[in-house]
Amino acid sequence: MNPREYLLNSFKVAVNAANPLHVVPLHLPKPPKGRTLVVGAGKAAAAMALAVEQHWPPNASMDGLVITRYGHTLPTQKIKVVEAGHPVPDKQGIQATQQLTKAVQQLSSNDLLLCLFSGGGSSLLSAPVGNVTVNDLQNITQQLLKSGATIQEINIIRKHLSTVQGGKLAVMCNAPILALIISDVVGDEPTHIASGPCAPDPSTYSDALNILEHYAINTPLVINKTLHSGCQQVLAETPKPGSSVFRNVENRVIASARHSLNASDAFFHKHGISAAILGDTVTGEARDVAKVYAALIKEIRQYSKPWKPPIALLSGGETTVAVKGNGCGGRNTEFLLSLAIELNGMDNVYATACDTDGIDGSEDNAGAIITPDTWSRSKQLGINARRLLTHNDSYHFFEQLGNLIITGPTYTNVNDYRAILIL
Amino acid sequence: MNPREYLLNSFKVAVNAANPLHVVPLHLPKPPKGRTLVVGAGKAAAAMALAVEQHWPPNASMDGLVITRYGHTLPTQKIKVVEAGHPVPDKQGIQATQQLTKAVQQLSSNDLLLCLFSGGGSSLLSAPVGNVTVNDLQNITQQLLKSGATIQEINIIRKHLSTVQGGKLAVMCNAPILALIISDVVGDEPTHIASGPCAPDPSTYSDALNILEHYAINTPLVINKTLHSGCQQVLAETPKPGSSVFRNVENRVIASARHSLNASDAFFHKHGISAAILGDTVTGEARDVAKVYAALIKEIRQYSKPWKPPIALLSGGETTVAVKGNGCGGRNTEFLLSLAIELNGMDNVYATACDTDGIDGSEDNAGAIITPDTWSRSKQLGINARRLLTHNDSYHFFEQLGNLIITGPTYTNVNDYRAILIL
Repeated sequence: MNPREYLLNSFKVAVNAANPLHVVPLHLPKPPKGRTLVVGAGKAAAAMALAVEQHWPPNASMDGLVITRYGHTLPTQKIKVVEAGHPVPDKQGIQATQQLTKAVQQLSSNDLLLCLFSGGGSSLLSAPVGNVTVNDLQNITQQLLKSGATIQEINIIRKHLSTVQGGKLAVMCNAPILALIISDVVGDEPTHIASGPCAPDPSTYSDALNILEHYAINTPLVINKTLHSGCQQVLAETPKPGSSVFRNVENRVIASARHSLNASDAFFHKHGISAAILGDTVTGEARDVAKVYAALIKEIRQYSKPWKPPIALLSGGETTVAVKGNGCGGRNTEFLLSLAIELNGMDNVYATACDTDGIDGSEDNAGAIITPDTWSRSKQLGINARRLLTHNDSYHFFEQLGNLIITGPTYTNVNDYRAILIL
Repeated sequence: MNPREYLLNSFKVAVNAANPLHVVPLHLPKPPKGRTLVVGAGKAAAAMALAVEQHWPPNASMDGLVITRYGHTLPTQKIKVVEAGHPVPDKQGIQATQQLTKAVQQLSSNDLLLCLFSGGGSSLLSAPVGNVTVNDLQNITQQLLKSGATIQEINIIRKHLSTVQGGKLAVMCNAPILALIISDVVGDEPTHIASGPCAPDPSTYSDALNILEHYAINTPLVINKTLHSGCQQVLAETPKPGSSVFRNVENRVIASARHSLNASDAFFHKHGISAAILGDTVTGEARDVAKVYAALIKEIRQYSKPWKPPIALLSGGETTVAVKGNGCGGRNTEFLLSLAIELNGMDNVYATACDTDGIDGSEDNAGAIITPDTWSRSKQLGINARRLLTHNDSYHFFEQLGNLIITGPTYTNVNDYRAILIL
């Protein structure tokens, strides 16, 4: 294997560690005395459902319904897959969620509720409280997504406008619950993935109102009224940590950046290359994250500190891009373009950054790769790297060099994967 | 020593490693057969000159002239100290530079030119070429400082508009030259400190024009004409690497982020605490650099990877703050406020970030310190940390907590010093 292949294979290993078809079977419970209902929501929901079907004992009763994003269906037999709107909820999602909650409410204590949650579930699983309409939800979701609010903050609003999220699916269920979770949220807290339908929620109506105020959201009147009613205890709060609601509930994160980085770490060690995980919760502007890592790479190349090469530096999380230009490219290629500029052609450094869901931003690529000749080749082709970065046009830097990584959708998502190999 | 004292003392050690009075004496040459002329420019120039005077053999002839920033004079006997404008050049700087170059031109091959360069020298040592006036220089410097151009880019312009910088002081000198340099420029290249009066300059007139175009600088006509004349070889280029001009010239970096981080590293080791240097060239937005380090700190605290605590994480360089609010504070307190938010009260983590020149931004503090109770105390005081960060008001966060570090001017500068101690 050459260094380029090490990096590409390490990405495959990282994605495989989050592949529902590999991971879900390891966590399937014994069938209960009664029946098993499988419900779920998220971009990985269909793949997770398929994995359950493939490994569920054929003589045990099981059926269900999961909601996934448009275009993310896979051929299942017993578990119905419905497609709905993401990241902004729509009527299809609301109808499917009604069907789903109806089925959950029919379960008894001898049955089992098996939940399959993954990224995207917050908008796919949609059941607005009281008089809140789908239009209200769409309105506020669109504003929040543009506001700079974190996903955790957006989900605090969602949990307090939903009859299923923030632990309320658990409230309506009489059967024991096992929720299998693929985490695409930094920190991997069950309350933040699909807005935690079966997880205790530490946040409050008052938190929700504060967030709307902080980001100066133009809040629809009915939503404002609802949240204020909640503050005045007219509406019930979401169930909190320690609540008896969760006595027979287990939320289990079965795939995450952590799992994937550990798998990549093991891959490099197996091939005799030391690896260091620099964190699975990296956030920040992609171009600035690259500058911090560039300084570490220079330290390693120039002083063999804090590690002697060869060494692989691994990290995960979710970087951001404050878009100012009108170019193409996601946060992973933006990270790599900034890194290439900072490294300025340094030899013996290889790097990849990819979105584990297979789509970095809005284009067709999962990410890209830097090799030691990337910089000199870009110069030969007359590419103005700095100008492309200024215009958030990282896609075209790597496209011209033939250095994009294209995988197609992976049917899972544990966020960013970055690996830097220094020889 | 408690963890807080370890951090504060490590900063003292880092600054001491860059203190001219300690460092310059280690690098003084033997007096030549003839006379010694001491010249220099920079914020540390007076302190460097004083160090030369204190350690120069009393029977050897020596005199000179250095230019420093207003308010940075120290009481010297033989070497005259002149104050001038920084970061925008002024007439005082131009007059002093004329005096300085006149003295240099009188040296012969038996003499020695001892140069003392430090940060700020680029504007203090000012000798515009041809018809370029001090007003033209001020005009273009002010525009460049606001443009987002790097200091390296700004210095490329300066070197091509100066009769002394970019190696041209070496051209006019018949004596051997030793230039002692305190580096405040990321990368520590002699050509970038005080715009390298005695250093080979790889950049060209054409580079200078490209930079002015890239940042859309409204270039005074006479400057535009000058640079175009240079491109057409009407004016001589700066002397390039490999030129015979530098046969008897040594540029020696005697203090830098590297030296200071190594000293801090040794300090921690002496006290039985492992330390890791994460780079001496860290750039990027201060708040985003903090996010990357927060992820690493979480990794260490949660998984004891890639290091087992206790560990001190050290780094240097020059972060930036894209000012959007109207608060107070420099890049180091902004870094620390962002770090405090990301750590969210995590225990057993201490951190400091300071400017080694003793002034972080425009206030009276060198930096600040975070202790494990910083977050809970800020909550008790009702401080809204996120809001302060949004308004670039990090100074008032640490002021209210009594966590500012105030040293006064240190008469040296090797840029940012950051140390994070994880127990």
